[in-house]
Amino acid sequence: MISRQDCLARDSDDALAPLRQQFDLPPGVIYLDGNSLGARPVAAVARAQQVIAAEWGHDLIRSWNSAGWFDLPRRLGDRLAPLLGAHAGEVVITDTTSVNLFKALAAALQMQTEDAAHAGRRVIVSERSNFPTDLYMAQGLAAWLDRGYQLRLVDDPAELAQAIDADCAVAMLTHVNYRSGYQHDMAALSAHCHAQGALALWDLAHSAGAVPLDLNGAGADLAVGCTYKYLNGGPGAPAFIWVPERHQGRFRQPLSGWWGHAAPFAMDPAFAPAKGIARALCGTQPIVSLALVECGLDIFAQTNMAAIRHKSLALTDLFIALVEARCANHPLGLVTPREHAQRGSQVSFTHPHGYAVMQALIARGVIGDYREPAIMRFGFTPLYTSFADVWDAVEILRDILDQQSYDIDARRDAVT
Amino acid sequence: MISRQDCLARDSDDALAPLRQQFDLPPGVIYLDGNSLGARPVAAVARAQQVIAAEWGHDLIRSWNSAGWFDLPRRLGDRLAPLLGAHAGEVVITDTTSVNLFKALAAALQMQTEDAAHAGRRVIVSERSNFPTDLYMAQGLAAWLDRGYQLRLVDDPAELAQAIDADCAVAMLTHVNYRSGYQHDMAALSAHCHAQGALALWDLAHSAGAVPLDLNGAGADLAVGCTYKYLNGGPGAPAFIWVPERHQGRFRQPLSGWWGHAAPFAMDPAFAPAKGIARALCGTQPIVSLALVECGLDIFAQTNMAAIRHKSLALTDLFIALVEARCANHPLGLVTPREHAQRGSQVSFTHPHGYAVMQALIARGVIGDYREPAIMRFGFTPLYTSFADVWDAVEILRDILDQQSYDIDARRDAVT
Repeated sequence: MISRQDCLARDSDDALAPLRQQFDLPPGVIYLDGNSLGARPVAAVARAQQVIAAEWGHDLIRSWNSAGWFDLPRRLGDRLAPLLGAHAGEVVITDTTSVNLFKALAAALQMQTEDAAHAGRRVIVSERSNFPTDLYMAQGLAAWLDRGYQLRLVDDPAELAQAIDADCAVAMLTHVNYRSGYQHDMAALSAHCHAQGALALWDLAHSAGAVPLDLNGAGADLAVGCTYKYLNGGPGAPAFIWVPERHQGRFRQPLSGWWGHAAPFAMDPAFAPAKGIARALCGTQPIVSLALVECGLDIFAQTNMAAIRHKSLALTDLFIALVEARCANHPLGLVTPREHAQRGSQVSFTHPHGYAVMQALIARGVIGDYREPAIMRFGFTPLYTSFADVWDAVEILRDILDQQSYDIDARRDAVT
Repeated sequence: MISRQDCLARDSDDALAPLRQQFDLPPGVIYLDGNSLGARPVAAVARAQQVIAAEWGHDLIRSWNSAGWFDLPRRLGDRLAPLLGAHAGEVVITDTTSVNLFKALAAALQMQTEDAAHAGRRVIVSERSNFPTDLYMAQGLAAWLDRGYQLRLVDDPAELAQAIDADCAVAMLTHVNYRSGYQHDMAALSAHCHAQGALALWDLAHSAGAVPLDLNGAGADLAVGCTYKYLNGGPGAPAFIWVPERHQGRFRQPLSGWWGHAAPFAMDPAFAPAKGIARALCGTQPIVSLALVECGLDIFAQTNMAAIRHKSLALTDLFIALVEARCANHPLGLVTPREHAQRGSQVSFTHPHGYAVMQALIARGVIGDYREPAIMRFGFTPLYTSFADVWDAVEILRDILDQQSYDIDARRDAVT
């Protein structure tokens, strides 16, 4: 069996290991929650100071032009694009994932309505286990359109192919499940959608910066995602939306604000959508939070998603193997697929006292999180997680379980 | 006639004058554009450092609870409420003004639809001179609802009373016009709306922090606004939405994300709106930008809107008087009302070469801005603008006009 010494040796050989120095991680913490909130790039403090003191404080209103604030959603979108398998001019960083999903779903339904062969379709397919806000946004949109749109939710990924049928307008799927870490085959499902005349809309919240993506190659139709998890953009940092060039001409969305206008400063009282990806924009963006997204992207620019994926799988394989070997006498159930192609960059285990065990782990410095029902989630972020971290985290878990040093009456506070 | 010495004397007597020290303003600048982007509170740099280094960097995911990130939209909304004449629990700071307007307008239309006496109304009244994005958002919503909603735009405030008739579902009005500085009588127009069976939705982008507001007293129905102008929240800082307690029970909006759910962490696949103002929330907010809003609110907490209004009118009166006296031989036309009750906290003058003159002013350190057609806007922010600033700004304007030291071929770059 592998030893801690072996883990240290793997860290010595790890080409990504030096990137950890570009993150600020508190001493004594093993941070396995980068799938919820990514760690802070060291550069973020200085970048914030630049934006706040120099751009806002000194240059004031002029910074909309001189510091490029107005172009920031597009410029940062272009920097993110390679991580998504997208082209420049296809991505903007803006608004929230929920709001962007609303735009994308509305646009997809409209695209189908304008296609005579598909205009009658009223079914949106998704998974009951999808992140709830995606379902809520679809429910909100469907109720407001009041044209008979309905959600068809499946309980198992294997049911998707059948559910995406000739009644389906759009399949709205999250590529990597937030709870289980299950990863869909984007190319196969997108192809199945197209064979059935449906459009494939992907939520990449747990994929961007976590797994290699090839949106254009996979034939996806639209995508949204978040920058504050694996991309390390900061708490609640603005989200992204991808509209491939082939769909941009007919992409229309109801949140038609001035940043999406063809001539935003002409002050014309009638809306006319901008050419290209800018039509996915709406209103004025929170510049300080938006600017910090670049600090995370700067770190990704020093490596590539193939290297990140290689290490991610090694970390999650190691974690699964060590937990199953060293905590074998405890009632832990692996939720995350063993098969690499079906695994994101997290590992989830059930435990009857999952919430209490997670609280005990956090108290010992191993920060993961808990999701109903009974699931402990551990995110593995190759930019700042080492093999020795994995060893140490499992040892602390083993000790907590062996000693039963967790409070089974722990109150479940709000956690995100 | 008043002299610069008189202005200095007024500054000596000004109880608000010491608050200027709480703002970072570059030397040599007279900043008359706080109606577009408020100046930076000195405290913003340290506050950003706290959020980024301590809350994000050190406490990481735990800050959603321990630093109160999740409650920030409501907590800051409660701090903003007194400036709006709103009660605690009626305001959240979240998303953008455009997105909040979409929520509010959608909710207002829905409230009318559920009222049997008003369900057939399909007219949204506004002004052609409204800030364009408000019109764009209404156009987007109307087009997507596809139930015959139409915008009825008036060209003069005097036409509003007639336009808000028994066909009108909602009057969507901006309280202080972004271009002219004209201020509506909110109480009178809201009362007229109610007499006609319409709802009154107010955009307070150029009002919040600029003029005294009494939303509940004026009988307004819904309101939205921005925090990055007179409230000094930072570039693109999240906006606000006000839903009075009397309407909260039937306030429903289509952007039904998880932050607006009754139990956001229960991960229920069906949406159920939160009780109270939280149902106006949608997705995860940009915490760094959001947190900085508090630095501006901290300064407002040291004074009150009556004192601010008193100085604001004194500043704008002085500016008008000095421009008209000292630049009398130049073709300047006052756009802003002379009557106090109809004036916000800005003054706009037309000039045939308004764009070029404004560029020359900016080059000399007097920062206002330009709006089509031919309008020079000057914002007066009593927290950091002195009477001597007004004198000096007019002297520089006079000199530029007398010397004709402006480039009439100046190119019109994008300005916000």
